[in-house]
Amino acid sequence: MNQPFTLHATDGAARLGTLTTAHGDIRTPAFMPVGTAATVKAMQIQDVEATGADIILGNTYHLMLRPTAERIARLGGLHAFMGWNKPILTDSGGFQVMSLAKLRKMTEEGVTFSSHIDGSKVLLTPERSMEIQHLLGSTITMAFDECTPFPATHEQAQHSMALSMRWAQRSKDAFVKRTGYLLFGIVQGSVYDDLREHSAKRLTDIGFDGYAIGGLAVGEGQAEMLRVLGVTVPYLPANAPRYLMGVGKPDDILGAVQRGVDMFDCVLPTRCGRNARAFTSMGEINLRNARHADDPRPLDEATPSPINRYSRAYLHHLFKADEMLGPMLLTQHNLHYYQHLMQGMRAAIAENRLEAHASALRAGWAGGDISATA
Amino acid sequence: MNQPFTLHATDGAARLGTLTTAHGDIRTPAFMPVGTAATVKAMQIQDVEATGADIILGNTYHLMLRPTAERIARLGGLHAFMGWNKPILTDSGGFQVMSLAKLRKMTEEGVTFSSHIDGSKVLLTPERSMEIQHLLGSTITMAFDECTPFPATHEQAQHSMALSMRWAQRSKDAFVKRTGYLLFGIVQGSVYDDLREHSAKRLTDIGFDGYAIGGLAVGEGQAEMLRVLGVTVPYLPANAPRYLMGVGKPDDILGAVQRGVDMFDCVLPTRCGRNARAFTSMGEINLRNARHADDPRPLDEATPSPINRYSRAYLHHLFKADEMLGPMLLTQHNLHYYQHLMQGMRAAIAENRLEAHASALRAGWAGGDISATA
Repeated sequence: MNQPFTLHATDGAARLGTLTTAHGDIRTPAFMPVGTAATVKAMQIQDVEATGADIILGNTYHLMLRPTAERIARLGGLHAFMGWNKPILTDSGGFQVMSLAKLRKMTEEGVTFSSHIDGSKVLLTPERSMEIQHLLGSTITMAFDECTPFPATHEQAQHSMALSMRWAQRSKDAFVKRTGYLLFGIVQGSVYDDLREHSAKRLTDIGFDGYAIGGLAVGEGQAEMLRVLGVTVPYLPANAPRYLMGVGKPDDILGAVQRGVDMFDCVLPTRCGRNARAFTSMGEINLRNARHADDPRPLDEATPSPINRYSRAYLHHLFKADEMLGPMLLTQHNLHYYQHLMQGMRAAIAENRLEAHASALRAGWAGGDISATA
Repeated sequence: MNQPFTLHATDGAARLGTLTTAHGDIRTPAFMPVGTAATVKAMQIQDVEATGADIILGNTYHLMLRPTAERIARLGGLHAFMGWNKPILTDSGGFQVMSLAKLRKMTEEGVTFSSHIDGSKVLLTPERSMEIQHLLGSTITMAFDECTPFPATHEQAQHSMALSMRWAQRSKDAFVKRTGYLLFGIVQGSVYDDLREHSAKRLTDIGFDGYAIGGLAVGEGQAEMLRVLGVTVPYLPANAPRYLMGVGKPDDILGAVQRGVDMFDCVLPTRCGRNARAFTSMGEINLRNARHADDPRPLDEATPSPINRYSRAYLHHLFKADEMLGPMLLTQHNLHYYQHLMQGMRAAIAENRLEAHASALRAGWAGGDISATA
């Protein structure tokens, strides 16, 4: 398979690259804001673009239930529907069937479940997942898998991973190839080294445009997550992008980039933004805290963020008064912070100074923002 | 008193003018979006400016309780606090003490009430209202009055209006004059012609930079409201702006402009926007209605609105999915529609064709949007 990924530089295990797609280039390491239901929550789409994001994520499970993939296809596809012209990655729906749907029943064929919206019965299979993502016009389609729950015994994890590998082959067979549209496989195997190795090798044999690492950030803790990455990544082809699904906090992303991961998605910057929690160069800051009530300073002068025109006192006021502008502004800030973080890592890898850059980032996060006023 | 209002043209009773202030010019007839708690709900401030609004409104009652006028003053005033450099009009607080506060007690001195936020006891007087609006740095300060409830007997309305006139004098005495900062008086008198005449004459004797008409749009109906305007406006000085408080729907505003009113404020475009109700050239449209689910058309091609890049189907989806972007986009549209409406009236007055323009507007609203697809 022709690989659309170009590697520009490495720094230790970390990589600087470009993933070329039908909807434009993705600079890696890349962070993908989550746009679950055809909207990045609390953001106008042009403001998402202004953060510097090259790609966003959509959730197949949500979109298949409402407004439905067929309706989006009739309206010209997900890009036209939500007004975003750059790449979109869609997940396979499998993860959210497990976390959101009621009355699930899993068989070799797929998963039958009841919609959390209207209770209707739905069958999701590898073939149907590929069809839905095709109808959406997804730039990057994810293979249909089971995200193995944590904790799982070796036997449970082996059984689940083997099913995901059979579903990966069926996903590959059902995927309709179009130039610039990509298909990623997903490595499973829980925290078991031998299963991760087996899964990575099996996916490589099938052959995908990129390789995701699934089943992490599900409760195993950062240290164990990074350890599993360390034993999994070496079995993945160097000429394809690697995507760590659902991760994470800035420090998680940094650690994963240092272990050779290229792509990330996470709801944290948007979800935390709606709850007054800001990611900054000084670590996390909760704007609901009363100490901000009279603070005339901008949130984080070290981050180029359009909300630096406002005082912390104003942001605090907006959350105290339950005004929508609070979530809107803090979501915008957090997405700017995440893109600024990725840009900084890309620059550091290009100049072979990621380790020093990582130390400086971690020192900033650990330092906090209290002493700055002392 | 030096009048900051310039009259450019008249068309029947309707007027085209400019109100000059310390924070810039206001083109009249003008619509002022409501920014109750130092934010126009669901809008980024630069997007408010992009609608063409020359002035916004802030609510003294909300701001005095949270974050407090003293805190806003320490942070540089309301303009700096919320990032808006154009004119701001603040109401006096009186209206919302009546509608929101608990345990009110009114005396000649003022109103004592319990905060709806923390229950603390607060005394609001004409002098304190002037002080608060001064601390906020309000461009246009409103005199402290009692908004007479509806219905009221002639005796009740007379008693209430007389109190408001004594408070208007005290407001004038307490107002700190600064160049380009204005003070408006408020006509009361319920639906009684003799009381409206008396109130208008009394305020003119005291002398204000502008004259508001209060105590309307409180349940009397559009016909009665327009009738009262017709008997009140002739008693107001021609060389000062006239402001109809809390009005209204597009047709209310049009009728009032035709009777010589220059300024308006209303929560309808923002409140309705949050509830899926759009104001358009074809009348009101409820985006929650299922008939929009597959509609690829923009909301209202006749209105220059940034949300015309989206389909009605997308807007419908956002409200069905309870996504914040729905209220954000529809608020933005409604504010664009209101400013477009005012701009159209200003152009028509300048060209002495307001009556024909009004007929065309009303025909559009009455026509609805259903036949457009037939």
